[in-house]
This record gives sequence, C-alpha cells and structure tokens, in this order.
Amino acid sequence: MISKLLDPQSVALVGASPKPGTVGYVILENLVTRFRGAVYPVNPKYDEVELWGRKLKFYKSVSEIDATVDVVVVATPAPTVPSIVEEAGRRGIPAAVVISSGFAEAGNQELEQRLASAARQYGVRLLGPNCIGVYNAFSNFDTLFLPLDRAGRPPPGPLALISQSGAVAAAIMDWAARRGIGLGLVVNYGNKADVTEVELIEHFAADDRIRVITIYLEGFKYRGEAAKFLNAVRKTVPKKPVVVYKAGRGRAAQRAVRSHTAAMAGTYEMYKGLFSQAGALEASSVREMFDMAKALATQPIPRGPRALVVSDSGGMAIQAVDALEALGLEVPEVPESIARELKRELLPFAAVSNPIDVTGSATDQHYKVVLDALLPTAFFDMALVITLMQVPGLTKNLAEYIIDSRRYGKPIAVVNFGGSELVQRFEEVLEDSGIPVYPTPERAAKALWALYKYGEIRRRL
Amino acid sequence: MISKLLDPQSVALVGASPKPGTVGYVILENLVTRFRGAVYPVNPKYDEVELWGRKLKFYKSVSEIDATVDVVVVATPAPTVPSIVEEAGRRGIPAAVVISSGFAEAGNQELEQRLASAARQYGVRLLGPNCIGVYNAFSNFDTLFLPLDRAGRPPPGPLALISQSGAVAAAIMDWAARRGIGLGLVVNYGNKADVTEVELIEHFAADDRIRVITIYLEGFKYRGEAAKFLNAVRKTVPKKPVVVYKAGRGRAAQRAVRSHTAAMAGTYEMYKGLFSQAGALEASSVREMFDMAKALATQPIPRGPRALVVSDSGGMAIQAVDALEALGLEVPEVPESIARELKRELLPFAAVSNPIDVTGSATDQHYKVVLDALLPTAFFDMALVITLMQVPGLTKNLAEYIIDSRRYGKPIAVVNFGGSELVQRFEEVLEDSGIPVYPTPERAAKALWALYKYGEIRRRL
Repeated sequence: MISKLLDPQSVALVGASPKPGTVGYVILENLVTRFRGAVYPVNPKYDEVELWGRKLKFYKSVSEIDATVDVVVVATPAPTVPSIVEEAGRRGIPAAVVISSGFAEAGNQELEQRLASAARQYGVRLLGPNCIGVYNAFSNFDTLFLPLDRAGRPPPGPLALISQSGAVAAAIMDWAARRGIGLGLVVNYGNKADVTEVELIEHFAADDRIRVITIYLEGFKYRGEAAKFLNAVRKTVPKKPVVVYKAGRGRAAQRAVRSHTAAMAGTYEMYKGLFSQAGALEASSVREMFDMAKALATQPIPRGPRALVVSDSGGMAIQAVDALEALGLEVPEVPESIARELKRELLPFAAVSNPIDVTGSATDQHYKVVLDALLPTAFFDMALVITLMQVPGLTKNLAEYIIDSRRYGKPIAVVNFGGSELVQRFEEVLEDSGIPVYPTPERAAKALWALYKYGEIRRRL
Repeated sequence: MISKLLDPQSVALVGASPKPGTVGYVILENLVTRFRGAVYPVNPKYDEVELWGRKLKFYKSVSEIDATVDVVVVATPAPTVPSIVEEAGRRGIPAAVVISSGFAEAGNQELEQRLASAARQYGVRLLGPNCIGVYNAFSNFDTLFLPLDRAGRPPPGPLALISQSGAVAAAIMDWAARRGIGLGLVVNYGNKADVTEVELIEHFAADDRIRVITIYLEGFKYRGEAAKFLNAVRKTVPKKPVVVYKAGRGRAAQRAVRSHTAAMAGTYEMYKGLFSQAGALEASSVREMFDMAKALATQPIPRGPRALVVSDSGGMAIQAVDALEALGLEVPEVPESIARELKRELLPFAAVSNPIDVTGSATDQHYKVVLDALLPTAFFDMALVITLMQVPGLTKNLAEYIIDSRRYGKPIAVVNFGGSELVQRFEEVLEDSGIPVYPTPERAAKALWALYKYGEIRRRL
C-alpha cells in the first residue's frame, strides 16, 4: 500500500546507528526528533543508547518489534537487504523504503531481482533501492540521509514532487525550504524495483492535501511504462494539474541519461508528444516547473486568454506584454469608456490603454483604481501586476489591495524585483495570502500561461 | 564633457531641500553623506541649515558659488530649468543632470527645446530631463531621488548599465546591491534632450574601470540614431563586450513603447538585425543580461565551443547538456585513455564520459581530479561545474579547487542550487574570486554561450 510508504504512523529503521555522520544516524535523528509517529531503531549491535536527550531501545531485528510497523526503512549494505525485506514481509510489514545502493545501478541486476521477488512474495510495497526515499512535511516522515544544515526541509503545502533524481530532489527541497514554498510531499524512487512514478501519480491524484503534482523525469525504463504514464496522467488531470520537466533532450544529454538512470531515453519528441496527449503541462526547467506549480496551487482557472497588465514601470510593462504575446496570450486595449474614466482618476501622464502604466509617481490607490475598474469586467480574464517598490509613492498597503482583488475570481500574478527589506516583506505578505510573486515579467507570464493552458486541457479532456 | 557628468569632483544641487521626503532632500542626503567630492546646495529659501550632523551653507544661485563646479543637478519645477541651465553655462559649469519632469514626455515640447538650446548655446552637456540620472559606485556621485531603504546601491565593479527606463534601472540597482553584483556605473538618460546612449557607449568604451557595458533599450527616438548606435557598438566591441536587452517586441508591446518613451519602436526584427551587425550580444531578459555580463566581466574567452560538464548529480548534468546543445555548444566525449585514468581515480559508479557524473557520494577531491585531468587538455574549451552541496561528501574546500582551476585559462561557470547557509557561503567565496555562479544549468549554459559568442564576434570584427 502506497499510503503506508508515504504516510506511515510507525517506522522501523534497519541500520539505525548512534554514530554521527553515518547514514543510519542522520535518518534516525530525522525520525526520532521530528517524526510524528512511533520509531523503532533496528541494529543488533546496540541495546539501549541515549541520544537527543532520550533513551532509545534498539531492536535486534524487525521480528523483535512487538508493535504495529507500517514501514521499514532499510539502510544496510546491499547484500543484506533482500533477507531484511523478506523478514519484514513475514512479520506483516506492508511497505519498505530501501535507501541502500549497490543494486542494478552498480551492475548487480541479480541482487535487485532477488530483492524485488522477496517484496512480491510477501506483498511488501517497495520504494527504491538506491533512493533518498520520502519526505513528508505533514508528518515529518523523512528518510533523507542529508542533515538539515545541508538540505533544508520545506514547510507543509499543496505541492508534491516525484523525482527520478535524488540529488535534484534534495536541491529542490533545500531551495523550497529557503523560499518558504509548500512542498508537502517529495518522493525519489531510485531504481524503481517495484513502485514507479505511475503509482505515485495515482496516489497523489487521490490525496486531498495535494493540489499540484510535479514530476522530474529522465526517462522510462520498462516496456509499457509510457502507456501507463499516459493513462495515469490523463485520469489525474481532470482533478488536479500535473507539471512535468523532462531532462535529457539532445543527443549528448541522452547519452548521459542512459549512464545515469539506465533509462531508455527515447527521442525527446516522443516524450513531448506523450505529455501533450496526456494533458500534462511541460516545463522547460526545474525552476519553471515550480513557477507554474505555485500559480496552479493558488489561482483560479481563467476563462480566456486576455491579460490585464498594470505597472508602475513602462519598461517592465513592455517586457510583460512581450512575454505574454510570445506565449499566445492576449493583451487587449481597454474599452474607450473605461479608459476615459481611468484618465480622470490616475495621474495626467499615466497610460490607460493596456498595459496600464500608473507611472513611477503612482500611489497604492492608483493600482486599486485600475484593478477595481477592470478586473470585474468581461474584458479581462487575468491580471499581471508589476510593482517596482523602488518608486517613492508605494507602501506595503498595496499588498492588501492586490489581495482584495482575489474576490473577482480571476488569476493574478505579481512581478516584484529588487532586494530591499520593503521588497521582501511585501513579497512575503502576498505569497502568504496566496498571490504568487515572480522576479521577472517572463516568469509571471509563463505562470499565467500555465493556468490558461490547464483550463484548456480540462475543457478538452 | 561626459566625464564631468558621470565623474564630477564637485556638484551643485539646485532645488536642494532640508525637508525630509522631498526629491531635493533625498538627493542632498546622497551627496552630502556619501559623495567623495564637494557639494554646493542651491536654494534661495535657505541660508544655513544643520543636517546630518553638519552645518550646510545654501547658495542663492549657482552664480554665487565661488569654487569650481563640475556638474549642476537640477530638481526644480520644469519652467524654471532652462534659465538655471543658462546660468550654469554662463558660470562655466560644463554639465547638467536634469531630474525634473514636465517636458516633452508631458507634451511640453517647446519647453524641452528651450532647455536643449540653452545647453547648446553655453556648451553645457545635459543628461535628461525627466531622468533618475547617474549612480557612480566609485565616487558615490548619486542623483537618485530614491532613498537607500527603497532602492539599494550596488558596490563598485566592472559593469556599466545604460537604461532607457528609470524605474527599471532602480530595480536593477536594488537587486544588484542585494546580490553584491559590481555595477559600478548606472545612467538613465530620460528624454535625451542632449546626451544619448550612443555617447554613453563611447564613454564607457574608453573607461578602464568598465569591462562590460549593458544596455536596456526600448527604442530609438530620432532619425539616424540606429546608424550611430551601430557605429558606436562596433567600435566598442573589439575592446569590451556590449550586452543589450531590447524591450518591446510584439505588437501590443510596441504600442506600450510608444506611449512610454515616445520611441519609434520599429520592428523587433530591425533591432535584432542591428544588434547582430553591430556585434552586440542580445539577451532575452534583464536577468539574462546580467547573467552574461557577470561571466563576461570575469572569464577568459574560450577558443572553441567544447564544454566539459562535471556534476555530482546525473540529473542536473543532463539538464546542462540539454541547455548547452540547444545553444549550439558541444559536449564531446572524453578520450578513451583519459576516461580509463579517471575510472581508476573516481568512484566505481561514476560516469567518466562527458558529462562526468562524480555521483552523490563524491568528495571535493573528485572534482579536482576531473578538472586537473581535463581542463588543461586540448579537448575542452570551457567547463560547466555543477555542485549540489546537499550531498554529504562535499565541503567548502571544493570552492578552492574550482578557483585553482582558473590557472588553466579557460572559462568556468558553476551551478549551485538550494538555500542552506553552506550553499550561500560557498557561492560567495566563488563569486568573490571571480567565478560566476548560477542557480540553474540553463543560465550557466547561456553565460558560457555568451563568452563563446563574444569570442566569435571579436574574431569577425
């Protein structure tokens, strides 16, 4: 059962260690100090050790644990793993995360097959081997062997990440932690001897805590996987968006994919076609994947492609219009009657067409006037709001006006750029209230495009 | 003389004010508290005022100042400006920065013409009107009317920015200040009644403190400007690179350009052709412009297009290869004999082709082995080094190994991603030693491409 793998209430850690710096120590520390559930360290070398201010009982084996265990996390040398999983299976433990490496990725196909058949025989669902496993921000179930000062842990939130690369997953987590991005569930499946991305997609599709599924994919490995992927994504997309970044596109990159994950790279065009058919949104980089995900998790779906652009910098507004048009979105002019009205309420030199340039002498109130006059009308489907807070007249109250505009039920993306304290506080207030903020007009435009595109996909499927 | 505009030793500020919050106050504070030169406040309303812990003498007019004045900064209502510039001219002041707005941009063409002819008549070189003027990080000559807590000021360094938009310039400065990017000179020329970007390019071409010129351009305004721009850039490029970002590409964007700077937008294809003919590097966003500039200011020019990619994450390496190939750079395989040697020195499961994957179990030493074995050879022209510091075996010593590799005389770009303290300290050490660091493989690849492309342009011109 995948839910026991990702959301266990009790965990046995085989290979738990009291020696700082070891893999078994780091995972034990994660679990003992932060996991909201029962933890059973397993290592025949120890009986009882005092760690992190508490007395920890060590078990000789999983069989010795006299309580329910939902998942066993295994971090022992590769040759010992199949029998540990077998024992866990006999003991009735339904799931295993195998961190250990030294299987197919190291040429030991035979050992991996023994592991897989042990799991199959006893009905144990197995993640890995050769993976960093699971990070669950809701329960702090965390099998990463990377200490917190090296790889930050993001806060709970509506995004899930399924990653074929462990290091990429860890780097994304570290970045998301710093940015306060709510990446609630992260899974790296390593050699996928049993559980594949397809089942993880299906699981997250049904998980109400997750609003957007992101996937970092290098390539499929087995025959028939592409068809299963297509099917799983297609079923998911009517419920929630799936954003995928496929690494390995060119020729040299595909050589690297083969050596990295032994995946059948296939041509990039094949993958591209597959994503489009399945209704997945394709990102062109990891960063873009999260730019899109952030908007998809917080904003409504627009009814059409028409964007309102409002800015205190004509220059930035132009960049935004460039980016929106290049993506096929529209930036229609403001109807004459409303433009006349705006002309009266904004500064004499403001541009009241679209993009609307409230100018560098603008006040918070000018943005409010524009948003209230145009966002409720039938002429615009979304808003890209540029707020260069370096100009003298803007204050943090502007954030409130933008947040208030959510009531018009149309997606909003904000562009904010700079580094002062004011800029950062302003961004935090917006993001905490569910308005995505981007440092460039291009990135905000792409996020709005993702919302529009997802709407189109939903209508189609 | 442009040098008096950008590098004055003495400044008169007409419209200086002791009233906090006014434009005349903010500029006065910049100059009095930070400028390394003489400052003469001019405002007939005041005689002597105590400000920032010193007694400031106010002058009635520029004529009253009994010392050399290199530049007059004017921040008084538009109608008063022509006569102030006239008086400055009579007084022998060679340059003026006019911050005041209310000229051609507000429909007052006639007033702007009077201003321009006053300047011409007395040989005063004039920046503006309607501009934020100059920021010089070397001398702290700073005419921005934006206080420091709103718009940060970047440290001295080898980049110059010429910006057609004042708000964009201020936002870039704020961002560069936060990132520690050495943006030594920033100029915003507003309505360009006299000094244009062409003369600024020529001036920076001859300024030895500047190694890279960046230009934010919305569009030319006058007949013949395109030809002059072409000529100025062409003459500059053999000495130092010019990177330009042109805003306003699509149709709606051009409508906005016209309303924003009254520039003749022309077709984007015209500009594109012009940049290419002139030998300017074109960036597709403000951020990309500085990604390129950072590399161009610190890295040597590669002899060819062949990139070595070394990474502790196979996934990230694949993304880098994708990006390099998409830009037309090459990622050739490692010669068999060297690959065998690497095989012995790296971990058993490392990939020794190219990209080289030292794996998530790598140590600092593994990077050193790869860089020392390959960077001095004739097989590679540049290196893209990916260091996901989240993996357990890497320390800050890795930065030293990478910095040491500069001795091979080939460009290096580093990709680092995450948010922990370790990641940030590591980045700082690298950047302080002149190794550019990027958060994504795509951005590092684009920076290496800029170096290669600049080499090609130099060979061609």
